Amino acid sequence: MMSTISVKSNAQAAVKKNVIPVIDCDVHPNPRSYEDLNPYLSDYWRDFLTDCKWKGVFPGIPIMAIVANAGHRMDSIPPEGGLGCSSVSFFKEQVTDRYNYANAILFPDSTFMLSASPQHEMATAVASAYNDWQIEHWLSKDSSFRGSVVIASQDPVEAAREIDRVGSHPQMVQVGLSIHSPYGGWGDKRYHPIWEAAVRNGLVCTFHVSVPGGLFRPGPVLGNYYPEGQTNNGLTYQAQINSIIFGGVLEKYQELRMVFVEGGFAWLPNLMYTMDTHWRNLRREVPWVKRPPSQQVREHMWFGTQPFIEPERHEDEEHVLQIIKMIGTNKILFASDYPHWEFDAPHVALAKLPKDIREQILYKNAMELFGLPDPMKSENN
Amino acid sequence: MMSTISVKSNAQAAVKKNVIPVIDCDVHPNPRSYEDLNPYLSDYWRDFLTDCKWKGVFPGIPIMAIVANAGHRMDSIPPEGGLGCSSVSFFKEQVTDRYNYANAILFPDSTFMLSASPQHEMATAVASAYNDWQIEHWLSKDSSFRGSVVIASQDPVEAAREIDRVGSHPQMVQVGLSIHSPYGGWGDKRYHPIWEAAVRNGLVCTFHVSVPGGLFRPGPVLGNYYPEGQTNNGLTYQAQINSIIFGGVLEKYQELRMVFVEGGFAWLPNLMYTMDTHWRNLRREVPWVKRPPSQQVREHMWFGTQPFIEPERHEDEEHVLQIIKMIGTNKILFASDYPHWEFDAPHVALAKLPKDIREQILYKNAMELFGLPDPMKSENN
Repeated sequence: MMSTISVKSNAQAAVKKNVIPVIDCDVHPNPRSYEDLNPYLSDYWRDFLTDCKWKGVFPGIPIMAIVANAGHRMDSIPPEGGLGCSSVSFFKEQVTDRYNYANAILFPDSTFMLSASPQHEMATAVASAYNDWQIEHWLSKDSSFRGSVVIASQDPVEAAREIDRVGSHPQMVQVGLSIHSPYGGWGDKRYHPIWEAAVRNGLVCTFHVSVPGGLFRPGPVLGNYYPEGQTNNGLTYQAQINSIIFGGVLEKYQELRMVFVEGGFAWLPNLMYTMDTHWRNLRREVPWVKRPPSQQVREHMWFGTQPFIEPERHEDEEHVLQIIKMIGTNKILFASDYPHWEFDAPHVALAKLPKDIREQILYKNAMELFGLPDPMKSENN
Repeated sequence: MMSTISVKSNAQAAVKKNVIPVIDCDVHPNPRSYEDLNPYLSDYWRDFLTDCKWKGVFPGIPIMAIVANAGHRMDSIPPEGGLGCSSVSFFKEQVTDRYNYANAILFPDSTFMLSASPQHEMATAVASAYNDWQIEHWLSKDSSFRGSVVIASQDPVEAAREIDRVGSHPQMVQVGLSIHSPYGGWGDKRYHPIWEAAVRNGLVCTFHVSVPGGLFRPGPVLGNYYPEGQTNNGLTYQAQINSIIFGGVLEKYQELRMVFVEGGFAWLPNLMYTMDTHWRNLRREVPWVKRPPSQQVREHMWFGTQPFIEPERHEDEEHVLQIIKMIGTNKILFASDYPHWEFDAPHVALAKLPKDIREQILYKNAMELFGLPDPMKSENN
């Protein structure tokens, strides 16, 4: 189905040249309700999900009582009702126009939780429905939007088939994954079909924060409190990058590029140098790891800003810039997490950084990684 | 039993004033064989362990084939045989005299694994035997040695009783714990009796790296390879500090001081600032946490050097000093891990740091924390 919206109305064309444009790498559209997915499901799965009163993919509710409105910004509900971020026009009014967006990279809300389900056939069917819904209701409505191929990674062969089915859509730029893996770590051989399909379709692999439960295991301690659990999110990222590096994934798939959003980034210097130390001492045990781990991180991985570290003491603020420079100013991508409550307004979150680094983080790094047009040179302006 | 060794022979008296002295916060003595513990066990437990051919506390073997000699330096076996670091005189010859030690803080090898055992009565009995053995065979042999109260933390009430039994020994300076907790996180209320006993006896609580298995749970990914597992060790430290802070332990026990050895330290800036961020946003959920998390870390916690981060690229070496300064040069303690293979020779590991910071890390910080005499002003010299 073709979009009926003209080029003039898309966010990219509206970019103001006197304000730094934004490429947001973490936006979570929702259907108005889960019934919107029905047209994209087979009769079998539509009846099955309807009969069992499926509650959708939103995570966490059964485990903990978390912040108000199940984590959605109260004001992200469109005037006509429905879930947060379930209206293209309201999203553009509330976010893309207000903050001078060039592009928004969409990752349908909480679909990374599909990979936690032991019902892998159901998860595979729902992932596929989400992709068709995403293309018809979002990507085709605005040419500045970019999409994520939703997959059920507990069946890597089916996941690869889904990547091949929709990954060639011109607005699809990444495969959307959970930072938790359903079995073993992301470095395990079982996931190779996913990386192969991503490389074959020229897609980045993007890992998003998720919640333990189902097939996803918690860390060494299951946090008792929400701020404790939020702080623990970064641990899973560290363990998975460690698994990917020592599993040899990036030696086998040298074209693979990975993005890690909503798990922070300030743990990266320690992780790189600790992996380097142990690799030097113990490389006899992993002879397939040829390049130093830190080099592999620098060549293959990018990181979202969310959550941004904010030291409590004024005298510690310089540490933020020091840490960003250790990682590389070209490795960090702006990620708002809209419509979730942690939303970072782009020009507020990075206000204390120098302008050249803000430009890199707000749009230049993502523009280069995803091959997007330069919003400052757009022909539409 | 009183020591028969004169004051003149202790390591402290032998400190050379022209070389920076060393206080080593991580030395692991072993019995020559586990039968050495028999005199300190009741008839019941001696017969029980003998009959079931108990293999001792050394961890890891059933889970992974790790480095040569089960992780002990090959040259740490005394000439007369036995386990690594099982002879006081050989330890002094190989380590304390050679590296100009003022003090060695002992933590009987792998006894932190006792807390992983579901047989908590057995673990409690063995912990107690280790303490009596440690006092008789090590502490009483050299007045420069300091000891750790070994406990079985899966029974916190019995553990507190053991701390009260031997914690007042003049050379006991800390309670020895595993970074893995047997149930829940270290922030759980169940462990309050341990912290109370530590404060009551004026002891630091020191957490040492351990191995998942038994009651200890692994992280979100159980690493497939040894360098991957070594890198994952730091994740458990981060999760446990997070649990301690948000559980309110340091608000309730304001005199408590904690040391974290063999889990690294370079992840700390990220952890402090991430906890601060989430505490500011979500403190309604943890009203008992009054002080910012980073302030609690700075007031209550110290960190061992082992493993020291070693960046692969020459141009990244300045990051090590930057990170140490973020944490505070007064918070890091030298830890060799003798007789384990990761042993860091004190003057090599820190060679690239400025002299004033090397002095802080090699002895001054530990001297202040543990209330040890200043080796440069020793009356014996």
